[in-house]
Amino acid sequence: MRLSELSRAVGVPPATVKWYLRVGLLPKGTPTAANQAHYDVRHVRRLRLVRALIEIGRLSVDASRRVCDAIDDADLPLHDVLGVVHRALADAGAHPGATPEASAAVDTFLDRRGWQVRPDAPARAELAAVLTALTGLRDSGAPPVDTADAVAHLLTPYAEAVQPLAAAEVAGVPTDLARDEVVEQVVAGTVLMERALGALRRLAQEHHWAGRREPD
Amino acid sequence: MRLSELSRAVGVPPATVKWYLRVGLLPKGTPTAANQAHYDVRHVRRLRLVRALIEIGRLSVDASRRVCDAIDDADLPLHDVLGVVHRALADAGAHPGATPEASAAVDTFLDRRGWQVRPDAPARAELAAVLTALTGLRDSGAPPVDTADAVAHLLTPYAEAVQPLAAAEVAGVPTDLARDEVVEQVVAGTVLMERALGALRRLAQEHHWAGRREPD
Repeated sequence: MRLSELSRAVGVPPATVKWYLRVGLLPKGTPTAANQAHYDVRHVRRLRLVRALIEIGRLSVDASRRVCDAIDDADLPLHDVLGVVHRALADAGAHPGATPEASAAVDTFLDRRGWQVRPDAPARAELAAVLTALTGLRDSGAPPVDTADAVAHLLTPYAEAVQPLAAAEVAGVPTDLARDEVVEQVVAGTVLMERALGALRRLAQEHHWAGRREPD
Repeated sequence: MRLSELSRAVGVPPATVKWYLRVGLLPKGTPTAANQAHYDVRHVRRLRLVRALIEIGRLSVDASRRVCDAIDDADLPLHDVLGVVHRALADAGAHPGATPEASAAVDTFLDRRGWQVRPDAPARAELAAVLTALTGLRDSGAPPVDTADAVAHLLTPYAEAVQPLAAAEVAGVPTDLARDEVVEQVVAGTVLMERALGALRRLAQEHHWAGRREPD
């Protein structure tokens, strides 16, 4: 198919498709004539994935390209592809520096839960940034949320909510299929279901607010 | 304090503080001289909140201003402030159009769960966009994730993970305090803990991957 057909098939404007080609987010098509190229079903899939990463997953163009490069590197194990995806998600939206207290409290929290997580896992810094921001927003009288006890109190319900979920997600990745057959689905699931999880939390909050009297 | 001191207190560059003042994200200080103004502790709090909304919550400047305006409108009940926050979070990152099938499947899913959620809750469209994207990324042989059964199968574990969490979050908002005493904390918690939830899910995934053999 031609670029205009690719554009229509996925619903991405031709100018955006051309830009994705230029910045290397989409592999070049097969040249057919001067200024013309042929695109196939793999371009449709990739364009859909890129769009989902950027528009729904809120990844930057650079982060999306790193994710696509990791998918295309057939020598990179699935686990390492997911490492690239996790880094991209942690970096989506810069997060201001965390205090050393908050970073240490996150490390203590994860240690006590017994979670096997690399020391440089990007989500550690992301969590520490959240705790630092919450501490900064506390009233002067309120205790900070960057001590081990305060962090355990705050984060435990969230950790307990996601732990069985993550176990099921990891267990749900088929072991009898080759890396190339699952990698795109696993990447898409990791990115898109984080968005779905946030949306469902807000819907559940709305539901529970509906059953509660408003404070005056 | 002066603008330079406000900037240092929160760790936001003076040029950014000036820009926030210009676009109305931060209320003007009290004029003290030509081109000089005095800022106080309320500016520090607001600047911290704005920074958290934008940098950690990934809200746009427009969405952050709508959230701040809602906080400052003392006549707006807390529940309605949260409606503004939920809309801002759903809109963070445009999401491409959902198919009617995906939208209908989300509505059916929420109905069957018995969640009391407004028909125009912005997270409905967000979920439908996720399902539409996942369906588009499926292999041609795989069933779409926009039928009621497929959506229930996919989303139920996520809904079950967040439901008790959301119940605890809503129950944790004090009823014995005035709106103005809790509104900033509730807004910050809604936005920042969504980010924390995603980070914890990824850490739990890493933990569970560590206990699993890599598919070849």
